[in-house]
Parts: sequence; structure tokens; C-alpha cells
Amino acid sequence: MSGSNFIGGARSAAGSVRLHSFDARTGEALPVIFTQATVEEVDAAADAAEQAFPAFNRLAPERRAQFLDAIAEQLDNLGEPFIATACRETALPATRIQGERSRTSNQLRLFAQVLRRGDFLGARIDRAQPQRQPLPRPDLRQYRTGVGPVAVFGASNFPLAFSTAGGDTAAALAAGCPVVMKAHSGHMATAEYVGEAIERAARATGMPAGVFNMIYGAGVGEQLVKHPAIQAVGFTGSLKGGRALCDLAAARPQPIPVFAEMSSINPVLVLPGALQARGEQVAAELAASVVLGCGQFCTNPGLVIGIAGPVFTAFVTALGARLADQPGQSMLNAGTLRSYGQGVQRLLEHPQVQHLAGPAQAGNLAYAQLFKADASLLIDGDAVLQDEVFGPTTVVVEVADEAQLRQALAGLHGQLTATLIAEPADLEQFATLVPMLERKVGRLLVNGYPTGVEVSDAMVHGGPYPATSDARGTSVGSLAIDRFLRPVCYQNCPDALLPQALRDANPLGLLRLVDGVYDRGHL
Amino acid sequence: MSGSNFIGGARSAAGSVRLHSFDARTGEALPVIFTQATVEEVDAAADAAEQAFPAFNRLAPERRAQFLDAIAEQLDNLGEPFIATACRETALPATRIQGERSRTSNQLRLFAQVLRRGDFLGARIDRAQPQRQPLPRPDLRQYRTGVGPVAVFGASNFPLAFSTAGGDTAAALAAGCPVVMKAHSGHMATAEYVGEAIERAARATGMPAGVFNMIYGAGVGEQLVKHPAIQAVGFTGSLKGGRALCDLAAARPQPIPVFAEMSSINPVLVLPGALQARGEQVAAELAASVVLGCGQFCTNPGLVIGIAGPVFTAFVTALGARLADQPGQSMLNAGTLRSYGQGVQRLLEHPQVQHLAGPAQAGNLAYAQLFKADASLLIDGDAVLQDEVFGPTTVVVEVADEAQLRQALAGLHGQLTATLIAEPADLEQFATLVPMLERKVGRLLVNGYPTGVEVSDAMVHGGPYPATSDARGTSVGSLAIDRFLRPVCYQNCPDALLPQALRDANPLGLLRLVDGVYDRGHL
Repeated sequence: MSGSNFIGGARSAAGSVRLHSFDARTGEALPVIFTQATVEEVDAAADAAEQAFPAFNRLAPERRAQFLDAIAEQLDNLGEPFIATACRETALPATRIQGERSRTSNQLRLFAQVLRRGDFLGARIDRAQPQRQPLPRPDLRQYRTGVGPVAVFGASNFPLAFSTAGGDTAAALAAGCPVVMKAHSGHMATAEYVGEAIERAARATGMPAGVFNMIYGAGVGEQLVKHPAIQAVGFTGSLKGGRALCDLAAARPQPIPVFAEMSSINPVLVLPGALQARGEQVAAELAASVVLGCGQFCTNPGLVIGIAGPVFTAFVTALGARLADQPGQSMLNAGTLRSYGQGVQRLLEHPQVQHLAGPAQAGNLAYAQLFKADASLLIDGDAVLQDEVFGPTTVVVEVADEAQLRQALAGLHGQLTATLIAEPADLEQFATLVPMLERKVGRLLVNGYPTGVEVSDAMVHGGPYPATSDARGTSVGSLAIDRFLRPVCYQNCPDALLPQALRDANPLGLLRLVDGVYDRGHL
Repeated sequence: MSGSNFIGGARSAAGSVRLHSFDARTGEALPVIFTQATVEEVDAAADAAEQAFPAFNRLAPERRAQFLDAIAEQLDNLGEPFIATACRETALPATRIQGERSRTSNQLRLFAQVLRRGDFLGARIDRAQPQRQPLPRPDLRQYRTGVGPVAVFGASNFPLAFSTAGGDTAAALAAGCPVVMKAHSGHMATAEYVGEAIERAARATGMPAGVFNMIYGAGVGEQLVKHPAIQAVGFTGSLKGGRALCDLAAARPQPIPVFAEMSSINPVLVLPGALQARGEQVAAELAASVVLGCGQFCTNPGLVIGIAGPVFTAFVTALGARLADQPGQSMLNAGTLRSYGQGVQRLLEHPQVQHLAGPAQAGNLAYAQLFKADASLLIDGDAVLQDEVFGPTTVVVEVADEAQLRQALAGLHGQLTATLIAEPADLEQFATLVPMLERKVGRLLVNGYPTGVEVSDAMVHGGPYPATSDARGTSVGSLAIDRFLRPVCYQNCPDALLPQALRDANPLGLLRLVDGVYDRGHL
């Protein structure tokens, strides 16, 4: 392991700023030393991606699918030292890292399937109508192509699935876009293992040098986003960090889209019938969701809303008892623990928020906490309830009745998820909440818990601001590829010069929209 | 005709600022007086759209299709005074206005077809796998829904097709998004006729009040874009105006996407074989494209590139003769004519640009002009060649050879179109230009002329910045609906609460992606 930057298929460490990665539990520095990318190296990484783009973007989808499959295989073959390193850097248990690795390699394989299915190409053909009056119609053929090099900023909390070879990287590579990864400072050694795996896969499948690049360091991301070669940005992290990148990207001479997945409190509505029927069970399940992975999930349920009454009171008591009973857990790193402590403190100090359960937050572990907030805070849009507290904390809000419930929901900002815990009778009574919640979220769950995000065609891990910077995208699932594609139309272009997707013979066997009708045939 | 603002299905003129519309040829004020929307009225228009959104967005696609069809019929039924008014406000001839009206109503009918086809809903279903190891898979269903109210800013040069009931409005309404239109100051009376036609169609088809709103005035657009109810913006106009809206939208507490179609010089490459075979014909056709509609098209060919040699020299001479021979034409309004004069002056004054043909630009008419610029201006990215001169002017650039041609193309900014005029032998020799040009454009034409934009499924009227603010969209053609849709996922939701698109019985008869396979059946 060299700790040097990945640029154009080679390694480079021209700089003098040295960086350490740390054991998340002990604070001990890991043996490898990383070298921060210089200004020239950041430029070189973006230029290498730009150099690679034309060839990579023109590759047949099957070739890119082989590349993604090869990365998946390389990841799956990483040995025990890799797992041990990821555990040390993140304090996540080995079973979690192993599970997340499977998820990550399966995600790569899902995008390989998308490439083989070919629907991402969005092929549409309007055939010429030379006899049309008053004017003939030309032959028009549309497909979608990669936008260009993509900058990716990974997340601390998923060192594999939302990082170096994670969803944004997989989606960008599938779309034909070379990637420049800003290695996450919280797991640089893990990133290096994964970067090397990607490089081996790129060489084994004959990809152009520069299809994948990775830079280490603080402050290098800003320069990267400003680089003219970069055409889109994928980001997972804090609202503050994501918004800063959006603002940078919007202020470029050529503005570019940023797909930032940022902040969500993931409201869970516990409806009266469900609490009546299974309040204890819901309390146990919800408590498990709140503390899962030390609450370090974007979809962690941070807000629980119920209607005043004895069943809700009993439920809150049960939830408090469950959460008070949880052992402390190590967080991803010292900064995350510090932020968690500050978030808990903010709730403790708020005059309209009451602490219900949980030991005093101190020391090296994070403790589960339950708070209760006045409904007026939601109705008035008070920031204390809209800001995500990243960690095992949740806030209950008791509303007086259905009318106040609607007011409270209207005050919510955009969310990754919302959840209804409900019996059939609840759903009948509260059916009109469904379209109301749909406006606020990327995903609406009924009788489930938002933690645990399936990687599939139908998943949406997105939602209105501030959950993400652009509600029209998802950062999990195969639709994520859409973020990095743009349509192009060819008019009266000879067959031999058309992209494969648009040729008369339909060599890719695509389902194409031909004169307004979907068809798999040739012309 | 009242000249008052359209707000929530009623008319309102609370303000005291009066506005006039003018005859484009004579400068005479039209009899109707318009009332600028007050701050309260702008808010009320956005609030009315927000009020209408839940009901309108939930309507069955067939209902919205009926609405669009009804608007088309109302437009087609507008009588002679409407045509006469549009001609007076824009100086466009009656045949053009009639043709543009057909295009506009057909565009509305195309979106009605899209609604009936249902593919815009993007339905995807991943069925539950309760037995899956290590974890069961939940039932996941994804569709696309409207983003919310959309603000639309029309263009001066297409008072129907890119204005009140134009492409952006049609796409937004099709997507289930109520519209707040900022009436174009250049054709307010035309806008009022069209607004009334939309209102009649909305009433006839039982649409919610507030599905369409329109405000008059200067400066009201800024307030509209900042209004929290507005979730996306469609704009057609200048780079300066479009970029200002993008910057405003990006700086909102909740940033929103802006789809601005702005500035393009639409390069035409005339290759040697084509000039050898039919140089005179190309000169005649290209001259006709340059002066069509007084050059007031976003896709007007503003740059002609050829390789030095006797056939290119002869072609330039022929093109100059054709353009020198064109009569002056009235422009859309006094401001457009003034801008055209300034653009021509900028070229005349540039030391590396040579005036080849065209009478002195003066008086009330616009005259066609031909200029020749040093290839170095393209290679070095000089602004003089990148800025659109809106009107009947084009600039030829002679490159020394194929290598210099590539350098020149590399220096181009994003474009709506690029065109190759080529014989088969040219295309063989210059085949690698195709992917190079693809990166720069939304549409690539072979042996055609970029003016004349078909409204169809396969059209792309878009392209990289500054042609548009977001290369992932198109403002013409049925794909334009995508700009105003966002995906939502339902997890384990009972069938009765699901949107129609996602129900087991597939009541809309959609082609859906079910467990990774496209299928039209029920589950």
C-alpha cells in the first residue's frame, strides 16, 4: 500500500502534505501514510478522466458490463487484511463490512445487468416521412450518452457501498463516465484497497487508463468540482458539505449538476390502530431500527409522530424503556461522535424538547436517546426538528388529532423516507396522508422500517431538498444511472455513423420507441 | 381583452403599473392596457398553482390528456383577430403564425399521446422475496410524479410554440405540474388570447382552478422564481437572462432546477467532397437557412467551417452573393433589432474578423451579413465567435487542414446543433468527427439545416452549456416531460393505496419493468 494518488492508471505522490488514517476505536494512526494531491495532481486526475472519456463512452455496453463484473469479483476476492482494515478505520463490525461488501459487489452486478438490458440508452426512432405535408419529416434518432467525467465524494457511514466503488461510482461508470474519486478521509486505507481492486479490473478488461482516478486530501474536492472537465458530481454526506458543493458547481462558468444526498429525519407515523394491536412490538422494532449500526444511516428514523391517547403514551414509554436499555456503541470516528454529542446537547437545551430516556452522552461511546418535542415545533418548522442528529437518537412528537397531524406533516422538509405503521383500519381512515407524504419523500414505507435500503430497479434513495439536492435523482438502485446521462439526437445520419443503439439492424436487441410504439425488432 | 393577470382561474388587476404592447413594425401601442402583477399577485399566482397541484397531479393521465387536447382545440379555433394581433406584436407573417399555431397544438396533442402511452410514468416493480437469504426483499414499486408548480418564461421568437401554451407549458401540464407563466413582454396580447384559450379548456375539462396562471410585468419573474411553491423553471431566451434565473434558483433556501435554453451558434461543417459536388446548391440552401424568419431561430446557423482550398473559396463567394442579395426584414421588436445591430457592430470592429457581404445595418430592417473569422479565434475560444448574434448573420471560418479543424471544434462551447454537409467519401474520411461533435451538441445533422425543429419523440432541443443550463433535458419533443418528473418508491404498500400505475392489476395497461423484465401484464 503506497498511499499515493490514482491518476490515469498510475500512482502519483508529488506532494509534501502527509495524511494519516486512524483506528476509529483507539485513535491510533494506521501504518500507511497518504500523500495529499497537489494542485497539479488534482488537475491531472480530472484531465486523465477527460482523456479516457471518448473511448470509454463509446465502448459497447457489454464491455462496460464486463468491467463492472470484474470490479465486483476483485472486491469479493479481497482478503482478511482488507476486512480488518475497514473495521479498524470505521469501528464497524466484520460481519457488517462483509455484508456491505456483498451489497457493493451486487450493486456493481446490477448495473452490469442494466447495461446488458440496454434500456438506459433510451433509444427512440422517428422514421423519415418524405411525403408529409406541409413539410417532410427527417429521420430522427435519439439515445442517451454519458455526460462526461464525474467527481464522486463518498460517505463515511458506508465505506464500501457509498464510497470508492459504491453506488455513485458504479452508476457513473455504467453510464460511460470516467470517475475522479475524492477518497473519504475517514477510511483512506479502505479506499486504497478498493481503488487497487478497480485498477486491476480496469487492466484485466482493457479499459482506458484514466477510467478511474482517486485523490487524497483536504480541500482537494473544491478544486476538483471547479475543474472544467468535470461534468457532474455525486456526493453523500452532510447538508453543509453538500450545499457547499452545489453552490460551487452552480457558480462555475459552466454550471454542472450536483447529486448530493444529505439530510433526512425520516418520520415514522405510528397510527392508533397499529399501536392498539401491537404497540409493544412496534416499540421493539423501532428501537432496533434507531440503534442499528449506531444510528449511522441516512434513513435512520429520527422522528416518530403519533396521536395523543393512552395507546400512544404506552408506546412512548415502551420505546423509552427499549432505548434506555441499549449498550453504548462506537461511532465511525471521533468527529462523528463529537457531532452526535452536539446534536444531543442541542435537543437537551431546547425549552420545548423533553428528554425521555437514555444515559448521559459522554465518553467514547454513543448512547441511544429518546426525546419528546412539542408539536408546535413541527408546525412552525423549527430547525431543531428539521436538522438530522446523526446517531442513535429519535424524537417523538404527540399531535392532538388528525387535523394537527396534517399541520405537522405540512411543516416537514423533504425526506429520503416516510413510514406509516398502520393496521388496515388506520389506512382506511388516514388514506389521504399517502399523497401528502408522497410530496415529501423519495420512498414511502408501510409497516416497515426505513433502515435497510434495497439495491434494485424500483428503489428510490432520494427525495426533495434537503434530503437531496435534486429530487429527480436517486443514489441507490439502477435508476441512479440516469443522473449521468444526457440525450442526443441524430438527424438523417447514415446508418454506419450511428451509435449501435440506433442502427437499423438493432444490433443490441433493444426495446426501442419507434414511431411512438415500443418494439424490439429491426427497422 | 382585459389585460389583467390570470390567478387561480380568475382575473386580477390590483396594481397600478400599466403596460403597453406595441406593433413591431410601426411602434404604435395596441389598444389593450396590461396591468403589472403586484407582489401580492405574484404570490397569489404561485399559491394558486400550489393549491391546484395535489388534485391535478393525482388525475388519471387520460384526464390530463383530455385537457391538453382541449387546449389544442381552443387554440386551433382562435379566429382572425388572434392571428392579426400576433402578427402585429411580432412582425411575423400570418402564414408563419398559422403554421406555428399548428405546431403548438400538435405539440399539445403529442403530450396527450405520451400521457396515454404512459411510459413517462416509468413504472418499475420489484416483487417481494420473503424467503431471500440473508434478508427478505420487500415489495418495491417505483413511478414518476410531477415535481410541483413550474414557472415558465416564454421566448420572443416563437410567440406560440415556445410561449404561453408552448413546449414548456405543455410538458409541465402533462407531468401533472400546474404552471405560472410569466407573459412575454413582446407579445402580451397574444399571450392573453392563448391564456384565455387555456382557461376555457381547463373549465371544459374540469381541471382544478390554478392549474394555469399568468402574470404580466417587468421584474415579476425574479419574485416568481424565488417563491417557495415553485419547484422548477422553464426558460427560453438569452444567455444573460437564463443564467440570471439559474443563479437565483441555485441561491434559494431550497435550490430548484432551471431548464434554460439560451445561446447556440450551431456550427455547420461543409466538407470538401460536398462542396466539390454541390457547392452552389449548399450555398443557396445555407443562405436560405440563415435568413429564414430573419434568422430569429435558436438553431440559426451562425458559424460555417470549411477546409481551405479552391472549392471552399468558391463556396464562400457564392454564399456571400446569396446573402448580399437578401431583402431586409422586420425583426420581432425594437430591442431585438438593436441587439442585432450591436452584434453586427461587434463583428465589424474585431480586428480578426472580416466583413464579406451584406449592406450596412441601419434603419428599421435587419440585413443579412456574412463575415469571415480567423481560425485562431475558434481555437483560442475567443468570445466573439462563441456569442450568438441573434439575426440573419453567419461567420465563416477557414481551417488549414483536418488537424486544425479538430482544434477548432475542440474550442467550441455547447450547442443545440451541429451539422455535417458531406458526401459519402467525406463521411468516411471524417467519421471520427461524429463522436467529437456529439459531445458538443443536443442534435447532430447530416446533410440538413438546423432551422426547423421537429416536435417528436426522438427530438432533442438541448445540449451542453451555454446552449442550455442542463444538458440532461430537451425543451422540444416528448422527452421534455422528464424535466418535471421525479421518482417515488412505495415499499410494502397495500394495493388500494398505490398509484394506479403500480397496482397489481395494471389498470393503465403500462409496459412495466417487473423483476428486471419489461411486461404489460398484471402481477
